Amino acid sequence: MKTLQAIAECAKNASTALSSVPTEQKNRALLAMASALEIHAEAILDANRRDLEAAVSGGMPPAFIDRLRLEGRLHRIAADVRTVAALPDPVGQTFGERVLPNGLRVSKRRTPLGVLGIIYESRPNVTVDCAALALKSGNAAILRGGKETLHSNTALVAALRDAISEVGLPADVLQYIDSIDREHVKEMLKLHDFIDMIIPRGGAALHQFCREHSTIPVMIGGIGVCHIYVDESADLDQALAIIRNAKVQRPSVCNSVDTVLVHQAVAAAFLPRLVAHLRQDGVTFRAAPRALDVILPADDVLPAGESDFDTEWMALILSVQVVDGLDEALAHIRRHSTGHSEAILTQNDDHARRFVEAVDSSAVFVNASTRFNDGGQLGLGAEIAISTQKLHARGPMGLEELTTYKWVIIGDGQIRPDA
Amino acid sequence: MKTLQAIAECAKNASTALSSVPTEQKNRALLAMASALEIHAEAILDANRRDLEAAVSGGMPPAFIDRLRLEGRLHRIAADVRTVAALPDPVGQTFGERVLPNGLRVSKRRTPLGVLGIIYESRPNVTVDCAALALKSGNAAILRGGKETLHSNTALVAALRDAISEVGLPADVLQYIDSIDREHVKEMLKLHDFIDMIIPRGGAALHQFCREHSTIPVMIGGIGVCHIYVDESADLDQALAIIRNAKVQRPSVCNSVDTVLVHQAVAAAFLPRLVAHLRQDGVTFRAAPRALDVILPADDVLPAGESDFDTEWMALILSVQVVDGLDEALAHIRRHSTGHSEAILTQNDDHARRFVEAVDSSAVFVNASTRFNDGGQLGLGAEIAISTQKLHARGPMGLEELTTYKWVIIGDGQIRPDA
Repeated sequence: MKTLQAIAECAKNASTALSSVPTEQKNRALLAMASALEIHAEAILDANRRDLEAAVSGGMPPAFIDRLRLEGRLHRIAADVRTVAALPDPVGQTFGERVLPNGLRVSKRRTPLGVLGIIYESRPNVTVDCAALALKSGNAAILRGGKETLHSNTALVAALRDAISEVGLPADVLQYIDSIDREHVKEMLKLHDFIDMIIPRGGAALHQFCREHSTIPVMIGGIGVCHIYVDESADLDQALAIIRNAKVQRPSVCNSVDTVLVHQAVAAAFLPRLVAHLRQDGVTFRAAPRALDVILPADDVLPAGESDFDTEWMALILSVQVVDGLDEALAHIRRHSTGHSEAILTQNDDHARRFVEAVDSSAVFVNASTRFNDGGQLGLGAEIAISTQKLHARGPMGLEELTTYKWVIIGDGQIRPDA
Repeated sequence: MKTLQAIAECAKNASTALSSVPTEQKNRALLAMASALEIHAEAILDANRRDLEAAVSGGMPPAFIDRLRLEGRLHRIAADVRTVAALPDPVGQTFGERVLPNGLRVSKRRTPLGVLGIIYESRPNVTVDCAALALKSGNAAILRGGKETLHSNTALVAALRDAISEVGLPADVLQYIDSIDREHVKEMLKLHDFIDMIIPRGGAALHQFCREHSTIPVMIGGIGVCHIYVDESADLDQALAIIRNAKVQRPSVCNSVDTVLVHQAVAAAFLPRLVAHLRQDGVTFRAAPRALDVILPADDVLPAGESDFDTEWMALILSVQVVDGLDEALAHIRRHSTGHSEAILTQNDDHARRFVEAVDSSAVFVNASTRFNDGGQLGLGAEIAISTQKLHARGPMGLEELTTYKWVIIGDGQIRPDA
C-alpha cells in the first residue's frame, strides 16, 4: 500500500487537473461511472457477499446487515449518479460582479475546494454518492469507509476509477484508503497540505474524533436531536400528521423528530391523541412528569430519564414534554438542540416569527415536517452531508457547498494610492 | 480572574441576546464606543505609555515601538468605528428564496456566527477594529492580544465595554483575556461548545499553533508570498508602476509583492529598469541565476538563496526570477504561492484568461497591484482578516463573512411522501 501522504499527494495533483475540466467531460465521466456499476455488477456483488458473510458470522443485527446489502440496489445507485450528471455545475460560476470607482472590474468565481477527505461508516452506497458529488464539483476525493464494507468499497472504487480513466480523466481523483487501522485516520486528519475539507459521515463519536485530531477543517453535522413544538394555536389534526411523518416515515435518520413539546393549554387534548395515533406504528414514548399527567401510563409510555431529552433516538421512540408556552419551548430547545432541525406548529404568525428568529439551527420549520431538511427535498438535487456547524455551509450541502471562490480583479494599470 | 470557560460561557449567553438586537441599537453602541475612545483618551494613553516604556526598556526595534503607539491615532481609530456603524448590517438579510412544488416557502437567513475568538499580536488598534466588526455583525468577541499591548488593550476594552453597557447591551459581548500564558490560548482553542470561530492575526507560527491545537474552526490567512508575473506582452511602464506600488507603498503587509517573475523575452529590457527604479526607494533584490544574467551585480542585488522564493519579505526586499513563459510562471506560483494574491501583467487576453483560470489564490489580478486584496479597497467597507483558506470565506472578510445562515422553511402542513 502507498503511504497516506503519497495517496494524498496523488489526489492533490489529480485535483489540479480536474479543476479546469469542462462540465461536459465531467458528465461523461459520471455516466461512465454509472454504467460501470452495472457492467461490473457481478464482481461488486461478489465482494459485497463477502462483507455480508462477515457481518452475519460476526452476529451483527439484521438492520445493520440490511444496510450493507447491495443486491437489487445497484441500478438505483447508478441512477443517482446519472442524477448528479444532470445537475448544474457550480464550478466557474461568477457572482458579485461590480466595477469599482477606480475602474477595477471585480468578481468572485466559484472553484473546487481541491481534495475532500470523507470518513464514513456502514452503507456502501455512500462510496458512490460521494465519488459522484466530488467529481461533479471538480474535487478529488479520498474515501475511508468502515471495515465492515471494505470488500464492497474496494470493488466499487475499482469500477469507478476504471470509468474515470476511460473518459481521459486521472483515476487518482478518486482514492480509497483500505487500511482499517484507526491510526491511519488520525494520520489522514493531519494532511492539511493536501486535503482541504474533512467530511465525517457517521455517529457523534466519529465527529468528535475528527474534531479532536484534525488540522484540516471538519464539517460537523448529521447529528440531530430534533424538536417539534406544538403551540396553543396549532391545527391539531395537521400536528398529528406532521409529527407522525417526522417520526415514522424514516426513524433512523438525522432529521427525524426526537422530542415533541406541547403547549400546556392543548396538552390534555393533544397528547393522548398523539400517543394513540403513533402507537399504531409501534412508537414508544419517554414522557416528562407534566406529560405523564395527561397520558395514561402504559407499557409503551415510560417516564423520561435524565438524558432522554439529549438523545437522538434513531428509532421509533419519542420524548414528550409539556411547556407553559413559547418561551419555555425556546429555552428547552436552546438547552437540548444539536442545531439540526426544529419546527413550530402554530397558526399564530407572531409566534412563528419569534420561533424562526430565536431558534439557532440549520433549518427552522413552521408547520412542516423536519424530514424536509435534506438536499434532495430542498432543491439541491443531492447532498453530501447536512452541516450543523456554522462555518462554510449550514444545513444540506450540495454541489455548490463543495466549492470555494476566488476574487478575480481585472485592471488596466491601477495602483493603490497612498493613504 | 474568571476561568476561561466562564468567560466563554458569558460571551455565549451575551451573544444570544445580541443576535436579535436591531441594527439601530447596534449602531448606537458603535457610536458610543467611538466616543468612549475619545472621552477616555487620557486613561488609554496612560496605559499605552506603560506598554511603550516596557518595549523601549525591552530593547524592541523602533518599527515595533511605532506600531504600539496610540498617541495621535485615537481619533482615526474612533473614525474607523464610526465607519463600521455606517455599513449595512448583514444580519437578517434573506436570500435564496423559492417556493417548492409542494408549496414550501424556502429561504436562507443570515445570522451571526455567535462567538468569535480573536488571537492577535502587536498593534492595539486591532482590539478596536475587531470589537466594532464583531458587534456590528451581532457576534460576541473574546479577544486575546499579545503581552506587549496588555495595558493598552485592557484600557481600550474597559472603555468599549462601558460604552456597550451605556446603550443597554450586555458588556459581556466583548471580553478580553488578560492572561499572557500561552497555555491559556491552548485552553481557549478547545472551547468549541462556546466559541464558533477562531481568527488568528499574526505570523505563520501563530496560525500553525491555532491549527494544531484548535477544535474550533480556524480562519487561516494573512500570510502572503505574493507573485507578479510580467508577461512578454506586458506594458513595461505600467509594470514598473504596478510593481513599485505592490512593493513600496506598504512593504510590511501581507498583500505586498514578494516575487517578480519576468518572461525571458523581456527580461533584458525590463529587469535592469526595475532594479534601477526600485533602488531609489531602497529596495534590495534576491535574484535567481537567470535573473543575474541580465542584472548588473551590486551590493543591493544578491543571489537568491534556497528559501528566498518561499519567504514573505514584509520589507523592502524583492525576489526576481526569469521564466520561459506563462507555463513556467504558473508552475513557479503553484510551488511557492501561499494562496494569497498573484497578478499577471499582460496585454494578451488569452494569457490573462489562462492565468486567472490556473492560479488558485484568494485573489487573482490582471494588470493591477496586489495591494488591492483588501476589504476596504474591494468595497467591503472594512475587514477583520484576509483568508487564504478555502472554507467559509476566501480573501478579505468583512461583516458578511462574520455571519452564517439558517434555512427557514414555511409550510401549511407539508409532510414528506414515502420514497
